[in-house]
Amino acid sequence: MGTTSRNLVIIMSIMTNILSVQAAAERLRGHIHRSPLMSSTYFDELVGAELVFKCENFQKIGAFKIRGATNFIRYNLGEKLARGVITHSSGNHGQAVALAAKMNGIPATVVMPLNTSSVKIAAVESYGGQIVFCKPSTQARDEAVAAIVAKSGLTFIHPFNDELVIAGQGTAAKELIEERQDLDAIVVPVGGGGLLSGTCLAVAEQGRRIAVLGAEPELANDATQSLAAHKIVSLPSPVTTIADGLRANAIGPRNFAIIEKNVSRIWTVSDQEIIRTMLLVWERMKIVIEPSSAVPLAAVIRNRHQFHGQRVGIILTGGNVALDQLPWGKLPLEYTESTK
Amino acid sequence: MGTTSRNLVIIMSIMTNILSVQAAAERLRGHIHRSPLMSSTYFDELVGAELVFKCENFQKIGAFKIRGATNFIRYNLGEKLARGVITHSSGNHGQAVALAAKMNGIPATVVMPLNTSSVKIAAVESYGGQIVFCKPSTQARDEAVAAIVAKSGLTFIHPFNDELVIAGQGTAAKELIEERQDLDAIVVPVGGGGLLSGTCLAVAEQGRRIAVLGAEPELANDATQSLAAHKIVSLPSPVTTIADGLRANAIGPRNFAIIEKNVSRIWTVSDQEIIRTMLLVWERMKIVIEPSSAVPLAAVIRNRHQFHGQRVGIILTGGNVALDQLPWGKLPLEYTESTK
Repeated sequence: MGTTSRNLVIIMSIMTNILSVQAAAERLRGHIHRSPLMSSTYFDELVGAELVFKCENFQKIGAFKIRGATNFIRYNLGEKLARGVITHSSGNHGQAVALAAKMNGIPATVVMPLNTSSVKIAAVESYGGQIVFCKPSTQARDEAVAAIVAKSGLTFIHPFNDELVIAGQGTAAKELIEERQDLDAIVVPVGGGGLLSGTCLAVAEQGRRIAVLGAEPELANDATQSLAAHKIVSLPSPVTTIADGLRANAIGPRNFAIIEKNVSRIWTVSDQEIIRTMLLVWERMKIVIEPSSAVPLAAVIRNRHQFHGQRVGIILTGGNVALDQLPWGKLPLEYTESTK
Repeated sequence: MGTTSRNLVIIMSIMTNILSVQAAAERLRGHIHRSPLMSSTYFDELVGAELVFKCENFQKIGAFKIRGATNFIRYNLGEKLARGVITHSSGNHGQAVALAAKMNGIPATVVMPLNTSSVKIAAVESYGGQIVFCKPSTQARDEAVAAIVAKSGLTFIHPFNDELVIAGQGTAAKELIEERQDLDAIVVPVGGGGLLSGTCLAVAEQGRRIAVLGAEPELANDATQSLAAHKIVSLPSPVTTIADGLRANAIGPRNFAIIEKNVSRIWTVSDQEIIRTMLLVWERMKIVIEPSSAVPLAAVIRNRHQFHGQRVGIILTGGNVALDQLPWGKLPLEYTESTK
């Protein structure tokens, strides 16, 4: 798709309200949590700036992904979605689609690779999602989705390359901006680019001069490469960073069109910085965040000389960590109940 | 001390405002955080009751202990504390005394056993506390404190067996009761009994009919035994439960006098229940609590048939966990800083 036709798509999307973060926020009202903001003296002193954390780990399903999925479903609700929705995801987007569908009374199918952890399978099942397993490859996954769509007429919800998903994710930044009028910058993680592109839209819609910055793992640095090359660069699969929410091997075309125009910088951080920052947040702020959530803070800490004295918003994207990997080992699944 | 003279001490303490939770709350105003309340649909459904969590893991030093230490210091501030304060603790009380002293401009000494973890030593040092090491036994610890008090004139702050500490700890329950008028019960963990006795005072002062219940590890069940025996029962040292904040081997006499009159029941839970409940809170509520904090919730879950349909307040006492025991192992202590 050339630049001109891409711009045309964006203009048409705005005109039809598909890319409006404001419209998304209205659709989401009452269906998701307004997640809290937090601050931390420790991190403020470490960075030499005033940091504001938007805590989407306290969001429904434990991550911001419920925003995009809910926006997609509520926009399209009716005849079009009567057969239900489908997506592929071994992570938060799968849970988001399952719960958003359940909350809106339609069925959801989630295609997951056979090696998905039992915790994530259980989470999707707990939200009423039907799971279809496929071989763990992009091709097998896409074929499984296509076969089900062709046969059953389900509507596919892409994890990031979709205008309604983008606008929905943008509502997190919108809430942040509304509550903190004085931000100099907002930093968010980049996987497929859904949150980053949505954040760009939110800032642009509010007509604010806030720098929008991205951060990604060194081991998944396709967004950094894409910005430098002025075209989408794909990494070879599988991408292996510990930040399991950021393992998409390329940004989506719709996301890249927005990011390229609006994002001034994307930083990379090592997996070791990600782990250390995640644990520091647990220790100092007493909140559980997942590795992907630690990526923007790790980038801000590494590049702190650029933020001196500024007010910086950071979206903590989620808190879904596999705690069964902790040293205490497997624990009994059920409580006993005293009858005394 | 007989019952009559004990009652006399309590009455005199109330008359002199030493045991007043209200007076403590006024002394603490502006010096500590008002910690947030949280709820959890997951735990409400698991228990069949409406649970309200008072989140003292977000308190200064990461635990409620700052309340008692601050109340003691602000009550006595002046000539009496000019030489500084001293305590013994390998845990949250040591940090609390160090920070409360620092905030009030007086020096603090903390006596710690030689085998204290480096994390806890660093925490006390970060609050400006001076550390004196002793051999890891109760006798060595008490002798070290006595020697320093005799030589340097420091004032000793007991971790729980002290009226001002008790009243200070009671302010957590006071805030909880003020914000939730409709509680049927409050459940808190029992170590030395400071928080439990303070909670009794808070409920009594507000003239409310709220059941005050205690919970402790099976491996540290001295409070349960003491209530049954109508006298203080001491456990042989060392007490080894994973709930490191609850390893006191006996309740304090001042605490027991209050608890015996006001507490309807103390429950015990296994270390396995404590660990599982702690991890469930991390996973479901996305907040970090320490093992001791999980004890009352574990007791409520085990005895849930007794709470059906009730509104139950639970004090999550702290969030100081040794995260360096996580499977990722030792991580680099310092960040690199980019100069690009």
